[in-house]
Amino acid sequence: MGIKALVARAAGAPLEEFEYEPKPLGDLDVEIQVAHCGICHSDLSLWRNEWGFTRFPFVPGHEIVGEVTELGAFVRHLKIGQRVGVGWLAGSCGSCEWCRGGEEQFCPKGQPTCVGRNGGFAESVRVNSRFALALPDGLESRAAAPLMCGGITVFSPLINNDVRPTMHVGVVGIGGLGHLAIQFARAFGCEVTAFSTTPEKQAEAEKFGAHHFVATGVPNALRKVANRFDLILSTVAADLPWADYIAALRPKGRFVFVGVPDGEIHFPGLPLLSGGKSVVSSPTGSTLGIEAMLRFAARTGVAAQTESFPMSQANDALARLAANEARYRIVLEN
Amino acid sequence: MGIKALVARAAGAPLEEFEYEPKPLGDLDVEIQVAHCGICHSDLSLWRNEWGFTRFPFVPGHEIVGEVTELGAFVRHLKIGQRVGVGWLAGSCGSCEWCRGGEEQFCPKGQPTCVGRNGGFAESVRVNSRFALALPDGLESRAAAPLMCGGITVFSPLINNDVRPTMHVGVVGIGGLGHLAIQFARAFGCEVTAFSTTPEKQAEAEKFGAHHFVATGVPNALRKVANRFDLILSTVAADLPWADYIAALRPKGRFVFVGVPDGEIHFPGLPLLSGGKSVVSSPTGSTLGIEAMLRFAARTGVAAQTESFPMSQANDALARLAANEARYRIVLEN
Repeated sequence: MGIKALVARAAGAPLEEFEYEPKPLGDLDVEIQVAHCGICHSDLSLWRNEWGFTRFPFVPGHEIVGEVTELGAFVRHLKIGQRVGVGWLAGSCGSCEWCRGGEEQFCPKGQPTCVGRNGGFAESVRVNSRFALALPDGLESRAAAPLMCGGITVFSPLINNDVRPTMHVGVVGIGGLGHLAIQFARAFGCEVTAFSTTPEKQAEAEKFGAHHFVATGVPNALRKVANRFDLILSTVAADLPWADYIAALRPKGRFVFVGVPDGEIHFPGLPLLSGGKSVVSSPTGSTLGIEAMLRFAARTGVAAQTESFPMSQANDALARLAANEARYRIVLEN
Repeated sequence: MGIKALVARAAGAPLEEFEYEPKPLGDLDVEIQVAHCGICHSDLSLWRNEWGFTRFPFVPGHEIVGEVTELGAFVRHLKIGQRVGVGWLAGSCGSCEWCRGGEEQFCPKGQPTCVGRNGGFAESVRVNSRFALALPDGLESRAAAPLMCGGITVFSPLINNDVRPTMHVGVVGIGGLGHLAIQFARAFGCEVTAFSTTPEKQAEAEKFGAHHFVATGVPNALRKVANRFDLILSTVAADLPWADYIAALRPKGRFVFVGVPDGEIHFPGLPLLSGGKSVVSSPTGSTLGIEAMLRFAARTGVAAQTESFPMSQANDALARLAANEARYRIVLEN
């Protein structure tokens, strides 16, 4: 019996229903019945083939929550019926230094869930069992789905840059990633400032936990917060006033970006140098990192604010995300 | 009695002899009779007022080694006749979080030795006693002078980025800074690769401790070392093929620059992001850092390769440095 899924046959083409015959289940694989699948901005980028490495026909979806329905012969750590989540990666080599070191996100043979594989806009999905991560009981499935990629994308840099509760953290962009970053930074105990071009988002930013709000469209607003931040986490893909953000950092401060900027990143060297500042990138996270984040979210109440669409309305959902209208993360439901 | 020094009265003007009356010695200050003063590339930049903050009349010099000849009333930790070194900073507020935290290089009131003060191209110099650092016996004065700024500039980023002996470190530029960086990285136990546009420097780079050499002018030479380096330390101020250097880093690798680049730093975001890589800056170092470096250099034999000029020939020395002919660090001697 085949797996029903939604597919784009070319860049930007509408998703349509199709059914594919999966390869035989590998000994280390599991099949998961998809209950929820978040839509990540990178699904949109892949659908449009913005990065040039999408493979068509393309089944999007890499923020999956569902139940295990089938186990490969060698899988011992999961059970039929268990609730699991899958993020950006669905497999990796398992033997390189990065896999063995618990940082599969750097495996040169890492297999993204929906690149060269059929993703989660589907009834079911098959992945390597090491990438099907048990969800803590306290997490609601719909709010947990966007954590699998969006969540870990902003949680990782807070962990990997040793963010401490005494720090002042800035979050640029209040969207699918930013609204989670604000919550995590607040739950870490940090002082949190949200930056947005949209002044109307101030109340929401404060609801998510921001102590301060900077409307970046107001002239000189950014310059008024010079020398304030230990870390600024940018969740936007736009070309930014990099020099002003560098100036907003305190000495030794880090500007971390998790969205791929349009065009080049460019900034003057002297201001960065005199303050011993850094520009740091952070791609997704490891399976251990995702598990730590899920436990942390379950304990602290960090959750995505979601809008639900039935899986059959995935095209409408993509259009809403493309129009920048999602508040704040769209989840497809079977 | 005045202090004899060499002064430039305008940007780029030849140094000439003059004599100035120092302010009364502060209770926490010391006077040092200058025996040796290294010439740093930043002396050249200040002399030309490239950064716009030089104050004229300008007495260059911030790589000073000499003997204490006078002690302020409250100075207890130094003795008359003791050999000390002074680097980029000659004073700081002593009370801000950076001073109290042992990172005076970030003090907003830090006083560079030769900006708004008369530097070490002189018979004597007066500095805050906290910035007159005792030299270990094992260090020869002439070879130690360039460590006071050039040395700490490349030692700091190795320490602050947690460079470990199992790492592969690249050093870009084999000059006053680079030849010290190669020695330090080798003494740290690292695998070391030197990058230079000058293929003739290969033998010298290997003499300083490089295991490998990349002639960056050879087409595709940089691309052949993709994905190799844990850390690349750039000591040059030139506009670089940033994207190729980013590609040369392994996942999580850091590109550290200590020279102020001409123009902006610019690189594509996606390659940085997919590897979780960083662009890091590092300005000079703390007094504790300099002391640790001096002890390390005395123990491991790291030393600047110097050319000596009498203080009276400082103009010739500046011209030689400007012509990029110094091999590898010029030291003026009284």
